[in-house]
Amino acid sequence: MPDIVNRQVVLASRPEGEPRDENFKIIEGPVPDCGEGEVLVRTIYLSLDPYMRGRMSAAKSYAQPVPIGGVMEGGAVSEVITSRDDKFKQGDIVVGSTGWQTHAVAKGAYLAKVGIPNQIAPISTAVGVLGMPGMTAYTGLLNIGQPRPGETVVVAAASGAVGSIVGQIAKIKGARAIGIAGGKTKCDFVVNELGFDACLDHRDKDLASLLAETCPKGIDVYFENVGGPVSEAVFPLLNNFARVPVCGLIANYNDSAPPPGPNMAPALMRSILTKRLTLRGFIVSDFAEQRDQFLADVSNWIVEGKIKYREDVVDGLENAPRAFQGLLRGENFGKLVVKVAELN
Amino acid sequence: MPDIVNRQVVLASRPEGEPRDENFKIIEGPVPDCGEGEVLVRTIYLSLDPYMRGRMSAAKSYAQPVPIGGVMEGGAVSEVITSRDDKFKQGDIVVGSTGWQTHAVAKGAYLAKVGIPNQIAPISTAVGVLGMPGMTAYTGLLNIGQPRPGETVVVAAASGAVGSIVGQIAKIKGARAIGIAGGKTKCDFVVNELGFDACLDHRDKDLASLLAETCPKGIDVYFENVGGPVSEAVFPLLNNFARVPVCGLIANYNDSAPPPGPNMAPALMRSILTKRLTLRGFIVSDFAEQRDQFLADVSNWIVEGKIKYREDVVDGLENAPRAFQGLLRGENFGKLVVKVAELN
Repeated sequence: MPDIVNRQVVLASRPEGEPRDENFKIIEGPVPDCGEGEVLVRTIYLSLDPYMRGRMSAAKSYAQPVPIGGVMEGGAVSEVITSRDDKFKQGDIVVGSTGWQTHAVAKGAYLAKVGIPNQIAPISTAVGVLGMPGMTAYTGLLNIGQPRPGETVVVAAASGAVGSIVGQIAKIKGARAIGIAGGKTKCDFVVNELGFDACLDHRDKDLASLLAETCPKGIDVYFENVGGPVSEAVFPLLNNFARVPVCGLIANYNDSAPPPGPNMAPALMRSILTKRLTLRGFIVSDFAEQRDQFLADVSNWIVEGKIKYREDVVDGLENAPRAFQGLLRGENFGKLVVKVAELN
Repeated sequence: MPDIVNRQVVLASRPEGEPRDENFKIIEGPVPDCGEGEVLVRTIYLSLDPYMRGRMSAAKSYAQPVPIGGVMEGGAVSEVITSRDDKFKQGDIVVGSTGWQTHAVAKGAYLAKVGIPNQIAPISTAVGVLGMPGMTAYTGLLNIGQPRPGETVVVAAASGAVGSIVGQIAKIKGARAIGIAGGKTKCDFVVNELGFDACLDHRDKDLASLLAETCPKGIDVYFENVGGPVSEAVFPLLNNFARVPVCGLIANYNDSAPPPGPNMAPALMRSILTKRLTLRGFIVSDFAEQRDQFLADVSNWIVEGKIKYREDVVDGLENAPRAFQGLLRGENFGKLVVKVAELN
């Protein structure tokens, strides 16, 4: 394919603290050969998600870091150009972890066909409500959070890709859903469009007391996807036997060292003990076997109007680094995706 | 009962840091009347357990604190003197939370008959291996720890009432049991008598590296009953999907304020996330419905020689305050009980 130029966003250096422009570099090069069992795709929508900050650091985590000079990792919705895997043919729409680039060659085994009927949702949702973020919300809330009717569920980043789905599924299960988001516009959306019972602004200095007022019967499920001050406001309100699915800690992703004291770890352990809390970390792939059930349930809920979603679409791969930096600052409004190319 | 004098250990003041002699007072007084549905008992064995430190503090916990001037709380094995509850008669041996005193009047509903056959174990074990501490080990390890064959289970205070049973049940379930205890004598006992695979001395300055050597495949279950430096040595060695039943935090019970920084709570949350740990606090009464199963299993294991236990018996109620102070410093060797009176 000598006439195709592949544009890639690579990791130029590891950020200390917040990622900056100079940590990324855009390069161009040839598309690699498509070997036996492989598929050449062109990227349509690239997903930007907070977990990618972890891949930029050398610290030990559940996945290897991106090497310096390597293509940034990320899930994407793509169109098949050439297939040397019998399961795919030219023109198929697929989803997979193909990275921040305009083209990719991937093993067929690592790709999945996007089978979302047109009338349900656009293909971009294969990296959104019907993809990894939606499944993260679904599996974490239902397996670990286990909300029961009448219980109170709190989730931050409530207008975002994961939080928005957590609260709506909590409502479907008969629980109260309390969101936390950044600013009045997002909070209004969370309540008026998504149907949460309430949404608080995390920038409010009285967050802790407002949250206590909003949760007069305490908090039974805290879907932890931010950490930091929101988490500190939530923990004292947790009820006995509360469940805390630990999904993300975006507030701490840019930390290069533990914050100053006092050391609150013993107090955290003490609250786990005395309130008999369950804290459990997870990543979506831990529940891979629930994918079909997730797709069936959430597709139905979308059709029934019980789950709504919002996308924040940025145009052009070259804008991905800036958009990602904004994501970590909460500047996106809805699931952040980069439109890399038009679908013909 | 005008001729019976009841001796009681009451809480004279709330300790700041380690409990001291002056926090306790021994008083004498009459035995209260035994009302309808109540039972008058005389204490034979009083149990001393770390959780009692929590009752001495005003801080919020899963139970109310002992009021100043109130009788110290505690489980005991007693003999019925007078019963106004049809379920009990004079001479019955019962167990219940009757406090640090020579006599008590309790509602029959809060007492249970001790039905341990003589040939299995002495009645003192109704507050030990066949009582609250044994059931704490059993329920916490099996419900939350869920050790599988070949996995590595670590427990501190390994010669103590709970830790000793945790490790032995881990062995019964096919796991490796690694104990941590204070000093060579206790460690030798844990390995040679209780059959743990290894036992490390928590006073050893190289605890972290010794633990890493002793657990070459990492740690799958950490039964958390101490907190502090032992916990800090264990957490970096936890494997993905490790389970941490949070049972006690004796290292922190005397803390009056959070320790100095840095603040390790975010790092703790990060390890929960990236290793997908499960931390779950519990107290034994959360699993009250498993009492019959616990008694059946552990009695069988004692008869089969698979579970051994050691008691550290202190003579005389007046020695309970000192013995309790020693317990918090790890000076006991085995389950600590106070022999308050002879069984005739």
